Amino acid sequence: MADMQRVIYFTQRPHGMVTRDAFEIREESMPRLSGDKDVLVETVYASVDPYMRGRLSSGKSYTAPFEVGKPMTGAMVGRVVDGGRTALQSGEWVFGSWSWSEYAVLPETALRRLDPSLPPTTALHVLGLTGLTAYVGLTKFGRPQAAERLVVSAAAGSVGSLAVQIGRLLGLTVYGIAGGEDKCRWIEHQLGAEKAFNYQAPDFADALARGLDSGVDIYFDNVGGTVTDEVMRHLNPHARIVICGQIALYNQAQPTQSRPLFSDLLVSRAEATGFIVGEHQEEFPKALKRLQSWYRLGQLKVEESIVVGFDQWIDAFLGLFSGANRGKAIVQVKDA
Amino acid sequence: MADMQRVIYFTQRPHGMVTRDAFEIREESMPRLSGDKDVLVETVYASVDPYMRGRLSSGKSYTAPFEVGKPMTGAMVGRVVDGGRTALQSGEWVFGSWSWSEYAVLPETALRRLDPSLPPTTALHVLGLTGLTAYVGLTKFGRPQAAERLVVSAAAGSVGSLAVQIGRLLGLTVYGIAGGEDKCRWIEHQLGAEKAFNYQAPDFADALARGLDSGVDIYFDNVGGTVTDEVMRHLNPHARIVICGQIALYNQAQPTQSRPLFSDLLVSRAEATGFIVGEHQEEFPKALKRLQSWYRLGQLKVEESIVVGFDQWIDAFLGLFSGANRGKAIVQVKDA
Repeated sequence: MADMQRVIYFTQRPHGMVTRDAFEIREESMPRLSGDKDVLVETVYASVDPYMRGRLSSGKSYTAPFEVGKPMTGAMVGRVVDGGRTALQSGEWVFGSWSWSEYAVLPETALRRLDPSLPPTTALHVLGLTGLTAYVGLTKFGRPQAAERLVVSAAAGSVGSLAVQIGRLLGLTVYGIAGGEDKCRWIEHQLGAEKAFNYQAPDFADALARGLDSGVDIYFDNVGGTVTDEVMRHLNPHARIVICGQIALYNQAQPTQSRPLFSDLLVSRAEATGFIVGEHQEEFPKALKRLQSWYRLGQLKVEESIVVGFDQWIDAFLGLFSGANRGKAIVQVKDA
Repeated sequence: MADMQRVIYFTQRPHGMVTRDAFEIREESMPRLSGDKDVLVETVYASVDPYMRGRLSSGKSYTAPFEVGKPMTGAMVGRVVDGGRTALQSGEWVFGSWSWSEYAVLPETALRRLDPSLPPTTALHVLGLTGLTAYVGLTKFGRPQAAERLVVSAAAGSVGSLAVQIGRLLGLTVYGIAGGEDKCRWIEHQLGAEKAFNYQAPDFADALARGLDSGVDIYFDNVGGTVTDEVMRHLNPHARIVICGQIALYNQAQPTQSRPLFSDLLVSRAEATGFIVGEHQEEFPKALKRLQSWYRLGQLKVEESIVVGFDQWIDAFLGLFSGANRGKAIVQVKDA
């Protein structure tokens, strides 16, 4: 094993659109086991997620901002290189949260051994926080009733594509919104949405109004901005809006103004709730059981957008905001 | 009794600020009892309310729009002129909803006899829909916890002034927002708010930021617009926003744009709910019992802004949108 490894540092807060200038790759010495409970892992798969953009800013957010001058951190799937005196064996797959680095030393308690009967990357999406976010958001805050109409924005994204499918499995009629005709056809044909609307199309607002002429009972919102402005015109009475993300706004130096959405809520006696899944851990066991069961039965399609190589890590993160991805963005840092 | 009476008709939908042009006073023949269950009442006190502005427009709203060419209708307190064959006696005070007219004929079942031990106008505010709106909104959707911080907009208005006081009686620390220093001092000294902020002051946003430096747990919103934009910057985690009215927007031909409020909800994992009290009648008995008990003990101050004379009716309604009123606006149509 090498003496040195690469680590990605956060070096400068972005103002507006985040660029490579926010990051720096540094070489540093390999971390070493220092206590009885320590484990050395190599990073095989790294998750890059839109919420991380919020942590790059110093403003009020739901997670603490990343510290300038410290390594980036995130959810990872790795392999044990040296289990030390712990119960973990070399070669075992583990899940955890650590630095954007090739290797990391963590206490055994910070690692979760993965079920070898499942593909390891599922811990980063359908059977991880992504799947939990879609399931808990939709069930706890959407409170779906049989045969209701669900609209999902960023429906080709990691959380959105699962929200579409979970909605369908729960018996809802599901509409997706995404950027581009290809994504829309994929959402209809592969994810089973009733219809998908391309927000880049010039007639988006009209197409949405026609398609949603029976109204919206649940809106699972990942994007905010003008897409949300349009969806909010079509609420049914007592609709529920699940605010999961507002990716359209994350990179704006000056947020765009919005229609008066509280008027929509009043007129429709509707409810909008922002949530982060980490605050609802009591829901996790039941949610994971259900997600696993659906996944094993082949009822949840998962699209992975995997880029290979440590060098691609920063670009994979930046790509989240260009709308190019479909499904879950993952960096494969080492050979699996 | 005269053969003719005056009735106020709605004759033209306003676009933007409502004016007298929307209405017409007509003389018509007195209504007569026509069935065994009919009662003739004279209108003594009439309620004028901001929600009526919504009914003047044809757009999506939570109540059916008023029909052009029909009389205006609203909540009234009247006296029985002729009880016919019903149990109601001449001279008894009754509450109901009828046309903006001097007299009306209604079935007995559409009238509620008032408790003679209470002032009759209380049926139009503290012990009527106004009080119920404040109580149900605050308790059911605000879900107050001991010692939380409540902000009320339009805090000198009919619903707002009760929401401030109910909040205080429930043990909350209450902040009010209103237009003008006089109203603000009244909210502090008479209603018992911790502090009131004048949204017309040039340093409103800064004063609010300083005053709300411990954040907002419940925001009872009657106004929307720029006031709400500012309050929403100061949410505590898991705050609840009770959307009761959006009076700042009712008379706008083109609604002003807003800050991205869904981002605020996401960042604070907060919840915003629009409601109309008429959909929560199961809460009424308990709420009325509590409101009556507070009122009889002198713990709820009620300010009435009474104008006298049928001729003042339309202006009293229009005055709701100029911000001139304090407390509940009532038209005294006949001598009490």
